[in-house]
Amino acid sequence: MINVGVVGGTGYTGVALLRLLVSHPDVNLTMVTSRSEKGLPIADTYPALRGQTDLCFSMPDQNALSSCDLVFFATPNGTAMHMVPALLDSGTKVIDLAADFRLKDPAEWKQWYGCDHACEDLLAEAVYGLPEINRDQIRNARLVANPGCYPTATTLGFLPLIEAGIISTDSLIADCKSGTSGAGREAKVTSLFAEVSDNFKAYAVSGHRHLPEIIQTLTSGAKQSDSAVGLTFVPHLLPILRGIHATLYAELCDEDHDIQSLYEKRYENEPFVDVLAAGTHPETRSVRGSNLCRIAVHRPKHCKNGRRVIILSVIDNLEKGAAGQAVQNMNIMFGFAESASLDHVPLVP
Amino acid sequence: MINVGVVGGTGYTGVALLRLLVSHPDVNLTMVTSRSEKGLPIADTYPALRGQTDLCFSMPDQNALSSCDLVFFATPNGTAMHMVPALLDSGTKVIDLAADFRLKDPAEWKQWYGCDHACEDLLAEAVYGLPEINRDQIRNARLVANPGCYPTATTLGFLPLIEAGIISTDSLIADCKSGTSGAGREAKVTSLFAEVSDNFKAYAVSGHRHLPEIIQTLTSGAKQSDSAVGLTFVPHLLPILRGIHATLYAELCDEDHDIQSLYEKRYENEPFVDVLAAGTHPETRSVRGSNLCRIAVHRPKHCKNGRRVIILSVIDNLEKGAAGQAVQNMNIMFGFAESASLDHVPLVP
Amino acid sequence: MINVGVVGGTGYTGVALLRLLVSHPDVNLTMVTSRSEKGLPIADTYPALRGQTDLCFSMPDQNALSSCDLVFFATPNGTAMHMVPALLDSGTKVIDLAADFRLKDPAEWKQWYGCDHACEDLLAEAVYGLPEINRDQIRNARLVANPGCYPTATTLGFLPLIEAGIISTDSLIADCKSGTSGAGREAKVTSLFAEVSDNFKAYAVSGHRHLPEIIQTLTSGAKQSDSAVGLTFVPHLLPILRGIHATLYAELCDEDHDIQSLYEKRYENEPFVDVLAAGTHPETRSVRGSNLCRIAVHRPKHCKNGRRVIILSVIDNLEKGAAGQAVQNMNIMFGFAESASLDHVPLVP
Amino acid sequence: MINVGVVGGTGYTGVALLRLLVSHPDVNLTMVTSRSEKGLPIADTYPALRGQTDLCFSMPDQNALSSCDLVFFATPNGTAMHMVPALLDSGTKVIDLAADFRLKDPAEWKQWYGCDHACEDLLAEAVYGLPEINRDQIRNARLVANPGCYPTATTLGFLPLIEAGIISTDSLIADCKSGTSGAGREAKVTSLFAEVSDNFKAYAVSGHRHLPEIIQTLTSGAKQSDSAVGLTFVPHLLPILRGIHATLYAELCDEDHDIQSLYEKRYENEPFVDVLAAGTHPETRSVRGSNLCRIAVHRPKHCKNGRRVIILSVIDNLEKGAAGQAVQNMNIMFGFAESASLDHVPLVP
Repeated sequence: MINVGVVGGTGYTGVALLRLLVSHPDVNLTMVTSRSEKGLPIADTYPALRGQTDLCFSMPDQNALSSCDLVFFATPNGTAMHMVPALLDSGTKVIDLAADFRLKDPAEWKQWYGCDHACEDLLAEAVYGLPEINRDQIRNARLVANPGCYPTATTLGFLPLIEAGIISTDSLIADCKSGTSGAGREAKVTSLFAEVSDNFKAYAVSGHRHLPEIIQTLTSGAKQSDSAVGLTFVPHLLPILRGIHATLYAELCDEDHDIQSLYEKRYENEPFVDVLAAGTHPETRSVRGSNLCRIAVHRPKHCKNGRRVIILSVIDNLEKGAAGQAVQNMNIMFGFAESASLDHVPLVP
Repeated sequence: MINVGVVGGTGYTGVALLRLLVSHPDVNLTMVTSRSEKGLPIADTYPALRGQTDLCFSMPDQNALSSCDLVFFATPNGTAMHMVPALLDSGTKVIDLAADFRLKDPAEWKQWYGCDHACEDLLAEAVYGLPEINRDQIRNARLVANPGCYPTATTLGFLPLIEAGIISTDSLIADCKSGTSGAGREAKVTSLFAEVSDNFKAYAVSGHRHLPEIIQTLTSGAKQSDSAVGLTFVPHLLPILRGIHATLYAELCDEDHDIQSLYEKRYENEPFVDVLAAGTHPETRSVRGSNLCRIAVHRPKHCKNGRRVIILSVIDNLEKGAAGQAVQNMNIMFGFAESASLDHVPLVP
Repeated sequence: MINVGVVGGTGYTGVALLRLLVSHPDVNLTMVTSRSEKGLPIADTYPALRGQTDLCFSMPDQNALSSCDLVFFATPNGTAMHMVPALLDSGTKVIDLAADFRLKDPAEWKQWYGCDHACEDLLAEAVYGLPEINRDQIRNARLVANPGCYPTATTLGFLPLIEAGIISTDSLIADCKSGTSGAGREAKVTSLFAEVSDNFKAYAVSGHRHLPEIIQTLTSGAKQSDSAVGLTFVPHLLPILRGIHATLYAELCDEDHDIQSLYEKRYENEPFVDVLAAGTHPETRSVRGSNLCRIAVHRPKHCKNGRRVIILSVIDNLEKGAAGQAVQNMNIMFGFAESASLDHVPLVP
Repeated sequence: MINVGVVGGTGYTGVALLRLLVSHPDVNLTMVTSRSEKGLPIADTYPALRGQTDLCFSMPDQNALSSCDLVFFATPNGTAMHMVPALLDSGTKVIDLAADFRLKDPAEWKQWYGCDHACEDLLAEAVYGLPEINRDQIRNARLVANPGCYPTATTLGFLPLIEAGIISTDSLIADCKSGTSGAGREAKVTSLFAEVSDNFKAYAVSGHRHLPEIIQTLTSGAKQSDSAVGLTFVPHLLPILRGIHATLYAELCDEDHDIQSLYEKRYENEPFVDVLAAGTHPETRSVRGSNLCRIAVHRPKHCKNGRRVIILSVIDNLEKGAAGQAVQNMNIMFGFAESASLDHVPLVP
């Protein structure tokens, strides 16, 4: 039983995290902070949590937080980096669900997030929290950078091909579609029901912050360290609540590969990656409310003489794409069962 | 640990039930029948259940079913009544999620469901499975008639007023709105996305099958057995997946009542009825994926000198309105913890 | 051909109005104001209007506006009342789509809108712009108060019964459901897609600003001036873009009335009110994008010995509930064909 | 004024067509056929058309149809080909909204549609009804094959690049997303609201019937007749009513091209193709209910040294993707104003 605090509990990532933590057998949720709603019962903001917790939102307080064994940051980008060093010093472990510790290169951070990094020296130590790649490092980490939602769906989709070194890595395409909860609980006109509903569009085609994160991870996973990863990444906004669907395009260097087996073997021991039968079409609802990533692989005969590979990868952006993966990381860090509080059956219909 | 069978597992009620049963600590799910999909893995029809069960749908077989301790019927109306007598004879208990055993009067059954009842003699024995009224009878029942979705939301909303005998029972109004999963997984033009989405309408205003069920229950709950219950019931179709919102109107006989306290007391020991603060507005998402019914009571000052009472009652039509309540009934019948497998935190957003 | 200005063109009511005005054969749209987007092409904010107009948003300017024959105000409540007197003095006519001139009693305005009225003396002159009641006064009006969306659907639904004096007017119930565009284009958390989608709830049950407006109109329409109108009004938020569905409940004083004929006769010459066959269920999509109000009347046999009347009334809240009705009023005021630019066939599916 | 008949008026394409025809100044709609609903008023099936037409659905009758100047087929694939020869013989012109006359090669028809073609000899004569390519041939055609929805959005998106001969034509990718009305008004489980809503998935990745149609058109448009067109086409199902969003990927042979100008010039005289500013993101709602195709071109700096081109192309699948384009073709064939009855402003929000 560990004492856990959450900084920034009012957003969608925050409430998804609280939902998992209140029913976690090894977690004692001791504080949830929110500047805007301090003093108010959590259950007033989220009636779905009535009866699950009596906690009120509190002001973020470094001292109080340092009494926790673990603190999750579900804050806007650029917030955690100002509080994390002191927390680590006090012996508290940290999982940051924002982007502060995802990029290894502080110059790249500045380029994409618009400000200097407040604790560059921690970037090297921070472990990128994708268990399917870094389980062992996560186990011993003090500081875990929880991956972004698009990067999780995209990386898990490309990974077996990248690691096997059998595709042209310089012309990858990720055509990704995300549910609206990914835009957060901020009051913005572009996130209004009357703007999003019965509508669909691409955004940020010229460059999205998740692009360098995906490239960094794919590059480090590539077999030949000298082959640069080139990725065209186009995100779209879906009129759904939860879910990311990544449609991934790659080209095999030659035709003689059993791609289906490659994927099945790569993920056979992964509790949260499910490789579907070849030729099937995973849907976002099949993972709604769960920590699963479901993947299907296609090689249409008519495309490039069978060298075109299309990978369909779906996650719930608030679960495997955020809070669920964060809890998975916690479970690994503290030696709990890896699926503790993550064994929800997806909600259908 | 009991052996449980499900007859009719391919509809939305069926899959909701399977979701609860596969993770129930005291249940061994032994067979799920479906004529249309016999032989196929359940997880092929419902990928959300991949990894949760290896069962295939089987043909409904009386002999095989009688080896179960309990059989759920998630079949169309008029199906269970042909199989239940033999199952009961063989010692198997039954919970019917359809309407076959809800109405006590076989003439009323025939009027609303269009055929003679196949086992009238069981109607008296069947226990109406609303635990908030009949918990003790459920405990000892062989045959439980699981309530309809509208009746659950409406009855729980009106019940405290009816039992207290403080309203005019002859002019109740239930303006109810249901999510589309309530229409089932049958291929019908009226249930198409392109018909339901961005649309709203009433239906069956001249008379809906749930009307006699509600009246029967409210009448038996009424304090004065001589006061007839008159109900105007207008159902509407909501473009949402799960959820019923009942907006209920009643008129107090006089003004001197603390309605809020009445509701809080009536339900203080009920694990799945949550009375909200006076003047609040429960939303359907606050119970999505859970077995809860949340209720709020209003008495606007300007209406009828404060004698108008408006009750807002929300449930998930597939949970407290169907599968969840069925599992709650099973838990009571077999002495399991009443909330076993029903402690899901509602899924928001 | 008249010169027309629009004050406040960036909201949903504004864009709905622009859509009708740019294709109106008798209208020369000369200016559209917006403080927040001044200088920007309208078509940049609303790409749907690309190719329809080259106008840019301008700052609201009293002088410029007074050069128009007619100015529409699609502004927040409490804005128009500060500009209207000068415009009228300069000979410009005004149609206000907000609430500033709807209530006749300035005390009631203050009670519901929270501030003193800036030009009380105009309240008597302002004509309530419901053509089905006030067509003649509208024809000669300088200042028209365009009705609210809920009041339009509710008033047209109750009106024939009220005028005929055959119902108990003290216990009317209006259970209304509105699409989300009714909440406007303001950035509010409660209007986010991730809050509204797959969700449903009531709001403002204790009292909504449209209540006094409805009561005022129904009272003035009532046959017996001494019978007070008592109304219980419960609005709900629908996860749809456009549409209001009013489910209205009344009780006949006695049973001997042909209600269907009453409605058909009352509206037989109304171009925008369509009385459906008895017993049918109008859906909001059947009026989407059009200025129509469709009404169906029900008298279920089992309710109150046939004295219960249920009226189903649907409109598009941005058309007959706002911009469409405003254009209808303009057409009447200036002697244009009443349906000019309002003859769109509703968009289905 | 011409006499027009519609065969198969009950589907979504049919009702979209009726909406345009009833308000067309040059059209006398004389008959609309439907086997399933013969004898019923059209307005009963589609209340949105109340007041627009008094026609009833009739049985399809070759004689009666041959009295029309023009007959539209809005029937399932494989229906029109059995009736068209006789109609043409009688001097009636035909626009087929299904696939019967789109493919030039009867073997390809058989491969993708599963049966022999009933009138192969007409395939050469039939004009592919994409006005942006074939306006002159359409003007003189007796038989027009109205393009599919995906092919319209995809072809208009790729066309300027293909015609200019500046891309590698063998590795095109079309990642397309379609609203649910594209699946038609057939009662299918996969089209239910409870299946489609809050969900997203790809389908038919191994091969979709629109693939050969797109390749045929792009091939004939290609500058170098010897360069084969290779296309990877992945359709997805969107939880929206109307709209297709095509995200198209191509690679320039070299970097020195002004792609934005290329597109603006190619479409400068096209009334229904709107090239947006470079770097913008068209949304499906910006064309909802209109015959427009809006296109934006992107060349992200980081992709392939600027040689990657991404084209975003949106249409309303029932308008420019079906009924609207059919009416545009009719207008061209009969010398009407090309935008007659097609000048609707898109409906937002």
